Amino acid sequence: MSLAPWRSLISRALHLNRSLVYARYFQLATVKKNGRPANRTVVFRGFWGETNKLKIITDSRSQKFTEIQEQSGGEICWYFPKTREQFRLSGEITLIGCNNYGQDFQQARQSTWQEISDNARVQFAWAHPREKRANFQTFSPPPPDPIVPLDNFCLLLFEPLQVDHLQLRGEPQNRWLYSQNELGDWETLEVNP
Amino acid sequence: MSLAPWRSLISRALHLNRSLVYARYFQLATVKKNGRPANRTVVFRGFWGETNKLKIITDSRSQKFTEIQEQSGGEICWYFPKTREQFRLSGEITLIGCNNYGQDFQQARQSTWQEISDNARVQFAWAHPREKRANFQTFSPPPPDPIVPLDNFCLLLFEPLQVDHLQLRGEPQNRWLYSQNELGDWETLEVNP
Repeated sequence: MSLAPWRSLISRALHLNRSLVYARYFQLATVKKNGRPANRTVVFRGFWGETNKLKIITDSRSQKFTEIQEQSGGEICWYFPKTREQFRLSGEITLIGCNNYGQDFQQARQSTWQEISDNARVQFAWAHPREKRANFQTFSPPPPDPIVPLDNFCLLLFEPLQVDHLQLRGEPQNRWLYSQNELGDWETLEVNP
Repeated sequence: MSLAPWRSLISRALHLNRSLVYARYFQLATVKKNGRPANRTVVFRGFWGETNKLKIITDSRSQKFTEIQEQSGGEICWYFPKTREQFRLSGEITLIGCNNYGQDFQQARQSTWQEISDNARVQFAWAHPREKRANFQTFSPPPPDPIVPLDNFCLLLFEPLQVDHLQLRGEPQNRWLYSQNELGDWETLEVNP
């Protein structure tokens, strides 16, 4: 698979916005079983090797896990404050839990677990998310093994199928659409903002 | 209608993040006709008078206009970088175009047009969004009348039905769910992050 032309644009935006820790956060929209949208902030965990797939992590006890199991379509909205540009990535999500998929995917899940911070890891040992507030102690569990992921730790691989890039800077603004043709090659179309 | 308890929390967050112009931006997720999610950054234009409804504007030529006409459910994800808190507002969108609804709504649409900047207004006179890039001149139209909105100017009123408030600050994080009971009163539940 060749790298998509928008991938280097995202890397460039990440670089130019690197002073803002929250430039690595974006909003992931999915669709619930009842047909209504869900939307939440998640952290970009890098691309998966030399592919166009974005890594995200989640807890199998979270609502988005169940939602994505039932409807794997997603749209990422990623706004970069410093460069004033937005990427909208529409795509498909692969959910890698503790006992599905083969070795490649499980290795990706494991190495992601090893890369995240102690603070990020311990949250997977906290009380069940979205249940009635548990007492204080349940949020101070012993730190989980930094090598072997907890069972509820999931890796999400987001594969963009279409990308909409808007630059607010510029007179007027600039906008491009990226999509794949039948051969799987990426094509670019400059459109009105 | 009484003001919801989360409304003042949003006002407070807006105040504490006021040095960041983009703290007034949030991501609005909707569902497309084909059942896939859409997600884009929009600007918060204030609450509608003394109600819990959030004002957003859009162009009737945009994709979201058509999408919302067909599926009025939406979820706003609003992340405040300075105070490190997130509001997720799940609700229903009312789309006020140039010739629907009664006087109250049309007045809201008109006054919103009058409140936005010249820069925001002129974009409604630009070439059709998302079509093949038009030439430069089409983006320098005469400034539209600042009193009477162009026909393609739409006001969106977003009425939250459920709100999920997450504070990343705090050891551990704090999270509350707000929902309405059968009498229409708002209830608060403290939950695990």
